[in-house]
Amino acid sequence: MTDALPIAASVEVAGVLTDLFVVLLAAKLGDELFKRIGQPAIVGEILAGVIVGPSALGIVEPGEVLEVFAELGVVFLLFWVGLETRISELREVGRSALTVGVLGVILPFAGGYALGALRGDEPATSIFIAAALVATSVGITSAVLIELDVLRTRAARTVLGAAVVDDILAMILLAVAVGLAAGGGVDVAGIAGVIALALAFVGFFAVGGTKLMERRPQILHAPRFSESPLLPAVIICLGLAAFAAQIGLAAIIGAFLAGMMVAETKEQHPIEEEIAPLYAFFPPFFFVFIGTEVDLGALADADALLLLAAVTVLAAMTKFLGAWLGARALGRREALVVGVGMVPRGEVGIIVAGIGRTAGVIDDELFAVIVGMSILTTLAAPPLLRRLVRTDPDQAGAAAA
Amino acid sequence: MTDALPIAASVEVAGVLTDLFVVLLAAKLGDELFKRIGQPAIVGEILAGVIVGPSALGIVEPGEVLEVFAELGVVFLLFWVGLETRISELREVGRSALTVGVLGVILPFAGGYALGALRGDEPATSIFIAAALVATSVGITSAVLIELDVLRTRAARTVLGAAVVDDILAMILLAVAVGLAAGGGVDVAGIAGVIALALAFVGFFAVGGTKLMERRPQILHAPRFSESPLLPAVIICLGLAAFAAQIGLAAIIGAFLAGMMVAETKEQHPIEEEIAPLYAFFPPFFFVFIGTEVDLGALADADALLLLAAVTVLAAMTKFLGAWLGARALGRREALVVGVGMVPRGEVGIIVAGIGRTAGVIDDELFAVIVGMSILTTLAAPPLLRRLVRTDPDQAGAAAA
Repeated sequence: MTDALPIAASVEVAGVLTDLFVVLLAAKLGDELFKRIGQPAIVGEILAGVIVGPSALGIVEPGEVLEVFAELGVVFLLFWVGLETRISELREVGRSALTVGVLGVILPFAGGYALGALRGDEPATSIFIAAALVATSVGITSAVLIELDVLRTRAARTVLGAAVVDDILAMILLAVAVGLAAGGGVDVAGIAGVIALALAFVGFFAVGGTKLMERRPQILHAPRFSESPLLPAVIICLGLAAFAAQIGLAAIIGAFLAGMMVAETKEQHPIEEEIAPLYAFFPPFFFVFIGTEVDLGALADADALLLLAAVTVLAAMTKFLGAWLGARALGRREALVVGVGMVPRGEVGIIVAGIGRTAGVIDDELFAVIVGMSILTTLAAPPLLRRLVRTDPDQAGAAAA
Repeated sequence: MTDALPIAASVEVAGVLTDLFVVLLAAKLGDELFKRIGQPAIVGEILAGVIVGPSALGIVEPGEVLEVFAELGVVFLLFWVGLETRISELREVGRSALTVGVLGVILPFAGGYALGALRGDEPATSIFIAAALVATSVGITSAVLIELDVLRTRAARTVLGAAVVDDILAMILLAVAVGLAAGGGVDVAGIAGVIALALAFVGFFAVGGTKLMERRPQILHAPRFSESPLLPAVIICLGLAAFAAQIGLAAIIGAFLAGMMVAETKEQHPIEEEIAPLYAFFPPFFFVFIGTEVDLGALADADALLLLAAVTVLAAMTKFLGAWLGARALGRREALVVGVGMVPRGEVGIIVAGIGRTAGVIDDELFAVIVGMSILTTLAAPPLLRRLVRTDPDQAGAAAA
C-alpha cells in the first residue's frame, strides 16, 4: 500500500494534496456562509480565495497544478451550462446575442483605449488596457444564473450566445495587441485565418455536432459501451476543450459546445446526475483561484486606489451600456439582466493583463489595478443580478416554469 | 467567454487538456477492448498507457500534472475501497492481515537483498533492490477485486489489512535504505518516531474516526450543510490523504481511512452514487500513468531481459509465498487468493527505484528492470486472481451474496 515518502519526494504530493484540501475546504466554508447571509455562493468562494491566498493568510500560492484544476473547473462549469442548453433555444436569441456581443466589446475597448491615452500611455499599453476591459467571464455569470435557476430564460441564453461572440472578438483584439506590443504590427492575413478557423469550429460543432448526436445518441450510450455514458461524455468535453485551446480559442467554448452536443442525447439517458459530482468538485477551484490572484499589497496607495476606482467604473459602465443597448429588443427588464450579466471580467481580465505584463507594456501597478477591476466587477455583478431576477415577475415565472 | 490564447500561454492549458483527453480516451479504449476479450479492464488501461507513452507512440509524457491526476486516481480508488469497508469486518481478519503483511515483506526483502549480493552489488544498492521488491500496490489489487465484485470477502479484507501493515513496514525500510545510501547510517530514534506516528495515525482514525462518524453522522449530512454530503466527504478524503502524506505515510492510507469513516454514515445517505463519477473519472489516470513509465528501449538487450526475468520471478514468488504462508489459516483457496492478491507492485516498485536512482545507487538498467518487474507483476496478477475467484464456488457465492 506504499507510495509513502516516495511519491511525496517525486512531486511533493503532500503539498499538492494539502493545497487541494485547503482550497476545497475554504470554498465550502465561503459557500455555506454566503448562502446563509443570502448572498451568491460564488462570491463567498472568491473571497475565501482572497483569504487563503497570498494577500492574506498565504496558505495557498496560485501554482501550475491549482491553475489546471481552476481551468478544469471552468471547463466543467461550461460543460454543465452546455448540457442545459439546446441549440434550438440558442438560435432564437441569435440576433440579440450578436448585437450584445459586438456592442459589449466596442464600448469597453474604446473606453479603455481612451483612458490609456488620457493617462499618456504608449499605444501598446492603451491597447492592452482596452483588451483587458473587453472580455466577459461567462463562467461567473453562468454560475450565478445556475444558482438562481434561470439558465433557461431568454436573457440567460442571450448572455451565453453573446459570450461566444465576445470571446471570438476578444481573441482577435488580443492577437492585435500582442502583435503591436511585439512591435511587429498587425498580421492581417494571419488574423483573418484565425477568425475563419474560430467560426468554422463553432459552426461545425454547434450545428453539425448537435445534429449528429440528436440522430445517433447511441454514439454515447449502450449497447456500444458496457457502462454509463459518463466517461464518453467527459471525453467529448475534454476533447473539444483541448481542440478549442489548440486553435487559440477559449477551452470553455469547446466545453460548452460539447455540453450542447451531449444535451441532444438526454432523452436516452439523464446524464446530468452523473456529471453533477464533477460539476460540484471542480468549479470551486476556479472561484478560489481567482481570489488567490488578488494582490492587496500593490493597491495600498491613494493613486492606485483612484485608478482602480476609475478603471472599475469604466469597465462596468461601458460593458453594461453596450450589452444593454444590444439587448433592448428583449424588453426593459431582460436588457437590464443581460447588461449586468455581461459585466464580470473574472479570470479573463487577469489573463490579458498578465500577457501584457510579460510583454513589458503593463507595469506592476497597472497589473494589480486590472486584477482588482476583474475581481470587483466579478463581486459586484452577482448580487445585482440576483436582485434583478428576484424582483422580476416574468423572470421568476420563467424560473419556476 | 475568453480565456483564449492567454491561459494557454500561461500554463500551456492546451497541452494539458490534450494530455488529459488522450489519457482518458486511451484508458476507455483499453478498458472496453479488454472487457470484450474477457480480461481485466485495468490491464487494458495500463497497456494503453504503454502505447500512448514514451515507449511507443510518445503522445503523452509523464509530467507533473499527470502525476497529480494519477495520485488523485489512486486516492479516490482507495477512498472507494474504504467506503465499501466496515471497520468491524476488518477487525475480524486482523491477525491474518498482520501475519500476511509481515511475512509478505520479509521474504521479498531477503530475496531482493540476496540477489543484489549474488550480483556483487554494494550493500546500499542491494537494500534498494530489496525495498523495491517489498511493497504491494493495493491500488491494482483493489481495482481487480472491485471489478470481480468480491471486495467484501474475507480474502479481500485480509489483503487490504495486510497492505496497510505492508505500507508501514515498507516506509520504515525505505527510510533505512535512504539513510544507508546517504552514507549516514540508520537513525534509530528517528525511525522509531516515524513508526509511532504511523501507528497513532492509523489507530486514531480507524478506531476513533469511524466511531465518531457512526455516532454523529450529521457531521457530514443535512441539516448542517445545504446540499449533498459529497463535498464534505471529499474534503475529509483529501484532508486525511494530505495528512498521511505530510507525516510520510502513503496518501492512499489516509484516503482509505477516510472512506471507512464515511462508510459509517451510509445508513443516513447512500453516498456511493455521488462518489461513483469521481471514482470513474480519476483512477484511469493512475493506470495509464503506470503504463507511461515503462521504458521498453532500456530492456532491449539479452542481459537486461535475463535480469528482468529473474527479478520478476523472485518478486512474484517471494511475495506469494510470504503472503500465502501468512494466510494459510484462512483455508487453501483463500490463502491462494491472498497470495496472488499481494503480488502486484504497480507504482510502488517504480517509486522506490526512482529514489534509489536519484540517490545514485541504482543505475539506468537496474531502474528499467525494476520498472519492468513492477509492470509485469501488475499485469500477471489480475488474470490469475480473476481465474482463482471465478472457479472458487465459495468466493463466487460470497460475491453473489
